[in-house]
Amino acid sequence: MTYNTLDWTVDDGILTLTLNRPDQLNSFTVEMADELEAAFKRASDDPAVRAIVVTGAGRAFCAGMDLTRSGNVFGLDESLQPTLQDMNERLDDPVIRNGLRDTGGRVTLSIYNCTKPVIAAINGPAVGIGATMTLAMDVRLASEKARIGFVFGKIGIVPEACSSWFLPRIVGISQALEWCYSADILDAEEAKRGGLVKAILPPDQLLPEAYRLARKFVDNRSPVAIALTRQMLYRNAAQDHPIEAHKVDSLAVFYASVKDGKEGVASFLEKRAPNFTAQVPDDLPPFYEDWAK
Amino acid sequence: MTYNTLDWTVDDGILTLTLNRPDQLNSFTVEMADELEAAFKRASDDPAVRAIVVTGAGRAFCAGMDLTRSGNVFGLDESLQPTLQDMNERLDDPVIRNGLRDTGGRVTLSIYNCTKPVIAAINGPAVGIGATMTLAMDVRLASEKARIGFVFGKIGIVPEACSSWFLPRIVGISQALEWCYSADILDAEEAKRGGLVKAILPPDQLLPEAYRLARKFVDNRSPVAIALTRQMLYRNAAQDHPIEAHKVDSLAVFYASVKDGKEGVASFLEKRAPNFTAQVPDDLPPFYEDWAK
Amino acid sequence: MTYNTLDWTVDDGILTLTLNRPDQLNSFTVEMADELEAAFKRASDDPAVRAIVVTGAGRAFCAGMDLTRSGNVFGLDESLQPTLQDMNERLDDPVIRNGLRDTGGRVTLSIYNCTKPVIAAINGPAVGIGATMTLAMDVRLASEKARIGFVFGKIGIVPEACSSWFLPRIVGISQALEWCYSADILDAEEAKRGGLVKAILPPDQLLPEAYRLARKFVDNRSPVAIALTRQMLYRNAAQDHPIEAHKVDSLAVFYASVKDGKEGVASFLEKRAPNFTAQVPDDLPPFYEDWAK
Repeated sequence: MTYNTLDWTVDDGILTLTLNRPDQLNSFTVEMADELEAAFKRASDDPAVRAIVVTGAGRAFCAGMDLTRSGNVFGLDESLQPTLQDMNERLDDPVIRNGLRDTGGRVTLSIYNCTKPVIAAINGPAVGIGATMTLAMDVRLASEKARIGFVFGKIGIVPEACSSWFLPRIVGISQALEWCYSADILDAEEAKRGGLVKAILPPDQLLPEAYRLARKFVDNRSPVAIALTRQMLYRNAAQDHPIEAHKVDSLAVFYASVKDGKEGVASFLEKRAPNFTAQVPDDLPPFYEDWAK
Repeated sequence: MTYNTLDWTVDDGILTLTLNRPDQLNSFTVEMADELEAAFKRASDDPAVRAIVVTGAGRAFCAGMDLTRSGNVFGLDESLQPTLQDMNERLDDPVIRNGLRDTGGRVTLSIYNCTKPVIAAINGPAVGIGATMTLAMDVRLASEKARIGFVFGKIGIVPEACSSWFLPRIVGISQALEWCYSADILDAEEAKRGGLVKAILPPDQLLPEAYRLARKFVDNRSPVAIALTRQMLYRNAAQDHPIEAHKVDSLAVFYASVKDGKEGVASFLEKRAPNFTAQVPDDLPPFYEDWAK
Repeated sequence: MTYNTLDWTVDDGILTLTLNRPDQLNSFTVEMADELEAAFKRASDDPAVRAIVVTGAGRAFCAGMDLTRSGNVFGLDESLQPTLQDMNERLDDPVIRNGLRDTGGRVTLSIYNCTKPVIAAINGPAVGIGATMTLAMDVRLASEKARIGFVFGKIGIVPEACSSWFLPRIVGISQALEWCYSADILDAEEAKRGGLVKAILPPDQLLPEAYRLARKFVDNRSPVAIALTRQMLYRNAAQDHPIEAHKVDSLAVFYASVKDGKEGVASFLEKRAPNFTAQVPDDLPPFYEDWAK
C-alpha cells in the first residue's frame, strides 16, 4: 500500500507516520484525511506495528487545511440543511458521510479507535487541523520550533476534529476556551505551560526522544494488554460511574490473564524477561468488539 | 432596563457587569440572583454584547449569601420533603422553582447557557456563592487582593451553584475536594497554584487585563462561531464518546461556513481583516436550539 | 471486629487504617480485599469515624498483589468466557462476583461510596493495586521514600481497581496513558510533578501532616454536609450537564439547612463555633439513598 500524502515506515515495531507534502507545509486535504484514516486502521490491525510516532516532513508539522484549493473549500451543498437528527440517525448515509461529516473528525476517530500508543512529534507549525489531530494522540512532544494554533476563530469557523471532546481533557476547560477564543499561535513554552505538550526538545532530539518513549511502550509489553489499556483509559474515564470501569476491568484482567498474564507472573517470579505471545488484533478478547464499538 | 444590585455598562462590544451592593460587600440576595439570571439572558441575546467581564463594586467581589437578612435565610418550607423524583419530573413547577431550587444554580446555569465569553475579574473577597458563581465563567483573573473561599462547610451546608460540576473540571477532583472540605480562604497565589485563576494582577491592572483579554475574543471574530465554540467545549467534552462531538462539529462547521466561514477564508487568502456579518442570536444555526437545550 | 491484614485505630474522630502485613510489604490478598471492603463500609456507617487516613505498616505502603501464592494467582476459571452482557446483567451473581470481579475494584468502589474524607499517606512503595487503591482516596500525601508504579504492563495485564476511571480525573488523560504504558516506578517528585500527590514529606512528618489535614475536614464540620460534599463532587462532576448537579444541590442545601445549616448560620452571626448535631448515617437526607446508589 502506498500513500500520496504520507510516508509509512516501520522499524522494529515502531511506525513512523510522516505527513508528507513538505512543499505545502503538509497542509491537510481530503486525500490526506482518507489516507490518515486508512493508515490508522491499518496500523491498528497490523501486528508488526506496536507504537506509532506521527511527525511532519520538512519544516512544518501540518499547516492546517489547504485553503488554496480553488472553489468551495468546505465542499458545502447548502441545500442540505442538516439537523442533529440526521447526524444521530444516518451518520453513515453517503449524503451525510461524504457531503457533511468533518474530515478532521474522521481522522481523530480513527486515532481514538487505534489499538496502539500514538506519540505526536510536533516538529514545526501545527495549525488548525494540524493542531487538533494531535489531541487524539496520547503524548505530544514539541520541537523548540513548534508553533501550535487553534486558529479556527480567525476564519469564522469552530474547532473541529472532536477537539471540543479532547482538548478540555488535556488542558482543562478554561485553558481550552481561552485558546479557542483567542486563536493565538502558541510557542512551545506556552503549549508546555498550558499542559498541552509533555516536553520541549531541540529539533534534532525530537524524533530520538519520541522513539525512546515509544520503546518503553513496546519492549517487554503485551500488545493485547497495551491495546486494552489505551481503550480503557479513554472510554472508562468518560463514564458517569466507576462501576462501568469495574465491569470492563474484570473482563480485561480475566482475558489478559489467560495468556500473557500467566507468562507475566511467571517471568516476574523467575526474575526473567517475559515472552508475551498474544497478538493484536487476533488475540483481542471476545468482549472487545462489543465494548469498543 | 435597570437593576438594583448590578451595573450594566457596554463599551465597544464588551459588557462590564458589576455586582453593585458595595456597602454590603456585594453580598448575594434573591434579588441579585434574579437580576444576574436576567442579565446573562439579556447579554446572550443582545448583539451589541460580544464578551462579558464580571467584577464587584468597591473592595469586594461578592462576600457570599447575605446571611444578615432576618428570618429563614434559606427560605425553607420544611413540609416540602422534596425527592430526586420531584427534581427530575417537575423542576419548573412553581413550588419547586421558587421554593426549593438553589438560587446560585439558577445564576450559573444562565452563565453556562450564555452565548458570549465570560471573564471573572475577581477584585477582592469572593466567598461562598461569590466564589462558585465564577466557576461557570470561562477565565478567572485575580487581583492581588482577591480572597476566594468555598466556605459552605463552615456553616454546615454544601457547595452549590453547580460547583460540584464545574470545580473538578477546572482544578481536578482532588483539589476540589480538599478546598470544599477545608473551607479555607485562599489568597490569590494559592488559587493560582491550584489552577483556579489564570493570572494575578495589581488591583489597578485587573480590569485593563480583563479588557485586553476580552478584546482578543471579540475583534475580528465571528459572534456565531464564538457562541458555538463556547457551547461545544462545555457540552461536547461532557459526552461519553467523541462521536457526539463529531456530529456537532460537522453541523457547526457546515453552518458557520455558509456565511462567516466563506468570508474568513476569503479574507485569509486576500491577506486582509475579515468582515464577519453573522449575528447572535439571529444567525445561530437551526440545529442550535435542539442541541443546546 | 478484628482484621488479619489491617489495623483499625480511631483517635478523636480520625480512623487510621493501616495495611498490616509488613513482612510481606503489605502485599494484597483476597483476604485483604475483603477486609478493606468491609472496613470502608464500617467506617462509612460509624459516627465515631469522621475522616480516614490510610497508610502501611513497616517500610512499604503496599507492594501490589501477592504473586507468590501458589497456584493460579488470578483464580481463573477459564471455562467461564464472560461477556459484557454478563457484567451488565448479573454482576452480583455469585459466579460473577466471586469468580470474576476484580478484587481491587471491590475495594475502590467501597472507598468511592464512603461517606468520610479519605487521605492516603503513602509511606513507601505503592505498586500495582497498592498504587491504584489510592486513586479512590481524596488526597494523596507522599513520604520522600514513596515509590509509585502502575506496573500492570510489566506482567501482561491491565490497570484495574477502576483506575481507568480515577487516574485521568487526577492527572489528565495524557499523563495517565504514559504512566500505564511505561509501567515506570515513579519517585515522589515525579508523582508530585504529574499531579498525583499533593505534597512530599520527610518520613517522620507524613502521618502528622495527614492528621493535620484530616483535622481541618473534621473540626467544626457537619458530618452530613461533608458526606454530601464528597458524593456530590465525585458524582455530579461525572454527569453530562450541570442541571444534574443543580437538582442535587437544591436537595442537599435544603436538607442540610434544616438542621446543621440553621446552626451554622446562627453560629456565624453570633461569631461563635457551631455545634453541629446531625450524624452519619442516621441523618443523611431521604434523597441520599436513591441518588447515591
